[in-house]
Amino acid sequence: MDVKELYEKKDDYMGKEVTLQGWIKNHRKQKEFGFLDISDGTDFRNVQIVYDNELENFEKITKYAIGCAVTIIGKMIPSNGKQDFEIKLTEIKKEGDCDKDYPLQPKRHSNEFLREIAYLRPRANLLRAVFRIRSVAAHAIHTYFQDRGYVYVNTPLLTANDGEGAGEMFKVTTLDLKNIPKNEDGSINYKKDFFGKKVGLTVTGQLEGEAFAMAFKKIYTFGPAFRAENSNTKTHVSELWMVEPEIAFCNLEELMDIEEDMLKYIVKTVLEKCPNEIEFFENYVEHGLKEKLQTLLEKKAVRITHENAIKILKESNKNFEYEPEYNEDLAKEHEKYLTEEHFHSPVFVTDWPKDIKAFYMKENEDGKTVAAVDLLVPGSGELMGGSQREENYEKLAKRMKNLGISEEGLEWYLNLRKYGGCIHSGFGMGFERLLMYITGISNIRDVIPFPRTPNNCDF
Amino acid sequence: MDVKELYEKKDDYMGKEVTLQGWIKNHRKQKEFGFLDISDGTDFRNVQIVYDNELENFEKITKYAIGCAVTIIGKMIPSNGKQDFEIKLTEIKKEGDCDKDYPLQPKRHSNEFLREIAYLRPRANLLRAVFRIRSVAAHAIHTYFQDRGYVYVNTPLLTANDGEGAGEMFKVTTLDLKNIPKNEDGSINYKKDFFGKKVGLTVTGQLEGEAFAMAFKKIYTFGPAFRAENSNTKTHVSELWMVEPEIAFCNLEELMDIEEDMLKYIVKTVLEKCPNEIEFFENYVEHGLKEKLQTLLEKKAVRITHENAIKILKESNKNFEYEPEYNEDLAKEHEKYLTEEHFHSPVFVTDWPKDIKAFYMKENEDGKTVAAVDLLVPGSGELMGGSQREENYEKLAKRMKNLGISEEGLEWYLNLRKYGGCIHSGFGMGFERLLMYITGISNIRDVIPFPRTPNNCDF
Repeated sequence: MDVKELYEKKDDYMGKEVTLQGWIKNHRKQKEFGFLDISDGTDFRNVQIVYDNELENFEKITKYAIGCAVTIIGKMIPSNGKQDFEIKLTEIKKEGDCDKDYPLQPKRHSNEFLREIAYLRPRANLLRAVFRIRSVAAHAIHTYFQDRGYVYVNTPLLTANDGEGAGEMFKVTTLDLKNIPKNEDGSINYKKDFFGKKVGLTVTGQLEGEAFAMAFKKIYTFGPAFRAENSNTKTHVSELWMVEPEIAFCNLEELMDIEEDMLKYIVKTVLEKCPNEIEFFENYVEHGLKEKLQTLLEKKAVRITHENAIKILKESNKNFEYEPEYNEDLAKEHEKYLTEEHFHSPVFVTDWPKDIKAFYMKENEDGKTVAAVDLLVPGSGELMGGSQREENYEKLAKRMKNLGISEEGLEWYLNLRKYGGCIHSGFGMGFERLLMYITGISNIRDVIPFPRTPNNCDF
Repeated sequence: MDVKELYEKKDDYMGKEVTLQGWIKNHRKQKEFGFLDISDGTDFRNVQIVYDNELENFEKITKYAIGCAVTIIGKMIPSNGKQDFEIKLTEIKKEGDCDKDYPLQPKRHSNEFLREIAYLRPRANLLRAVFRIRSVAAHAIHTYFQDRGYVYVNTPLLTANDGEGAGEMFKVTTLDLKNIPKNEDGSINYKKDFFGKKVGLTVTGQLEGEAFAMAFKKIYTFGPAFRAENSNTKTHVSELWMVEPEIAFCNLEELMDIEEDMLKYIVKTVLEKCPNEIEFFENYVEHGLKEKLQTLLEKKAVRITHENAIKILKESNKNFEYEPEYNEDLAKEHEKYLTEEHFHSPVFVTDWPKDIKAFYMKENEDGKTVAAVDLLVPGSGELMGGSQREENYEKLAKRMKNLGISEEGLEWYLNLRKYGGCIHSGFGMGFERLLMYITGISNIRDVIPFPRTPNNCDF
């Protein structure tokens, strides 16, 4: 029986015998009594087990260590304490012992220490809450799109496309690194490599996603992507999960509707399904988290152009470290001012200067800006980035040429414009960014099971 | 409006004006009439549009090419043909033209040709059916596990674990291949690489999955895995998607219950949600597909030991190319005989000789076999592979030593046995294998959007 079921049906089980299997999280012993906190991971809450010295093996039980796996048989009784119920033990069996050097003793551990024992940390309250929310949010994303007729597409991770432009790429090879085959001119002979060409790990599934949107109208990807940037910040990992929807016959305004609707759906689902976890984050991680999320659900996000955003920033009379400029990106402090001080709301910033945005974005009629949109949220800054895509073959080819992006290997992407290409738009959302926003956790390493960062690939 | 909605609510829309956006799949012209087949990808079925020469731009419309993107306004009317309805055109707008060299003209194309235009092939009937089923089946997998309290875990793809043992690995690096840094002894200086050590692409998420099962009791992974084997067969790709559930306090018998229940749930969901696609596969790919799937739902799968399976094969008096042997793996022809000729049913084969199975499988009391199970299905052979895991630290360490698997980098995996390790079991299912079984498609390259195989990494 799962602990989750025990809590959900506690009225039915009250006074009855129940069987549980889980791990000892805490153990308090007195002369004639003992208390075990048991978790089986199916619910954020533990179950309190009471045992007394009328049990034959009382002395033996008092020696059960934190971390042991046990099977428990007992009777559900009302609790005198703050629990909904407790279990009066009748029988206990040790299913797996736990060594004395168990690092996860019941006390407060630093997040840094927990990262060092990443294989054990999902047992700690903080990570138990994070990883359940991660699972529930992932399923909410799938359900949101599936219920609305989107097709889920698994775009490839191994790619020979060089021009995706979202970041540095890892190389993938089966060549013998001790003895790299070379051509006569000294260049690497990739013909001898597994794929017969230079291949790396993708930074985005967008380009392939567009191909599928031209067949299914509405698609989404949800899978891993990679970044080989050597940056050690709180918001960068080398392996991450992305959601990338792509919609045919959809312009920028309609895209923003989808982004906002999806975000609200995910947050609403998490609030409904994980109230104990959210309460935990409210108390121990971000005070005001619940209000932040509730406000998101109730308000409509603001939509302003990049130009107007800069105007607001310039007129704010704030002493920014970086001066806001019309032809430049927004800095973290600017995002913070717009969402937390000026609008008190999520903000869509649209129509960005084309020189600081990607090659596939649709040029606006002014010739200076592109139909791009970033969604900024209070507390986390940029959460999604999207755009209407350039659907005109000649304009796209010209833009690639101007930026020095080779058509080689991307002919098919251009061809999508020749063969029934129509207005279409899409966005990308880093799944870990979303989780940081929902949980209030400030380091991305603490929302992904086994984080990969420079010099760090353990477990 | 989606075509899917049009079909679902055709009684409501009959006689009313509707607006559609999609692509021209077929175009038949007569002197006074024309017929357009339109698909928007949201439904497997096209919609027939009728237009006549009373329209001002009749001549222009007759020239619309196959593949064009269009917006259609018209009235839903009853059809004289085999369609549920048709749309009498009042207005049409071209949203995107299609060049004359469009490769996907309405005729039968070989699967090989379609692979060469993988960016266009989701528009072809066969692949349109495959990729919708892929999406629906993926969501069925998530829903099955989430509804039963499992936690979805994203295990890492970049790994330094060498001993996973399921296949050859791709190397991942940011080193300059032209100038590999070496140590004094001539070996590669991985300290200069991105992660400071030798890293590759994972072949399985199982080991990390076990760590999470010890926290959440029931978990599943669903993500990519890689194989660098240089094999060019119909059942091998280098990048694939795997489902790997792992359950604490679960033995081999209980594991088989879960495998069978999950498989039936997925098949049932696909039959319910994709009847037109399944009908297509029945007619054009595998005659008898529907009966095969229906039989699966109705029968309980057979469970026999490997030893008994060999006995049956030996007693069959069949002339096998490979003689069945007690201490060896089953060949394709053996799997075929067991499922299709002897049992006419899916078959769980249990208790395999330990010498041909992986290091982490639990040794049975006979000292010769392990608590492993393969699920064989008619038409496809092996669909899932699972086992009870060795939960005893000493036995696991000894087994690794005997097989020459280094503990280095896997200490944490061993430690799971020291810290509350209990009986647990898990299995892996190749998602593409499942799709081949459900669709009857015989080449794995045709059930994955952009297949990666030796010398093949296009798009």
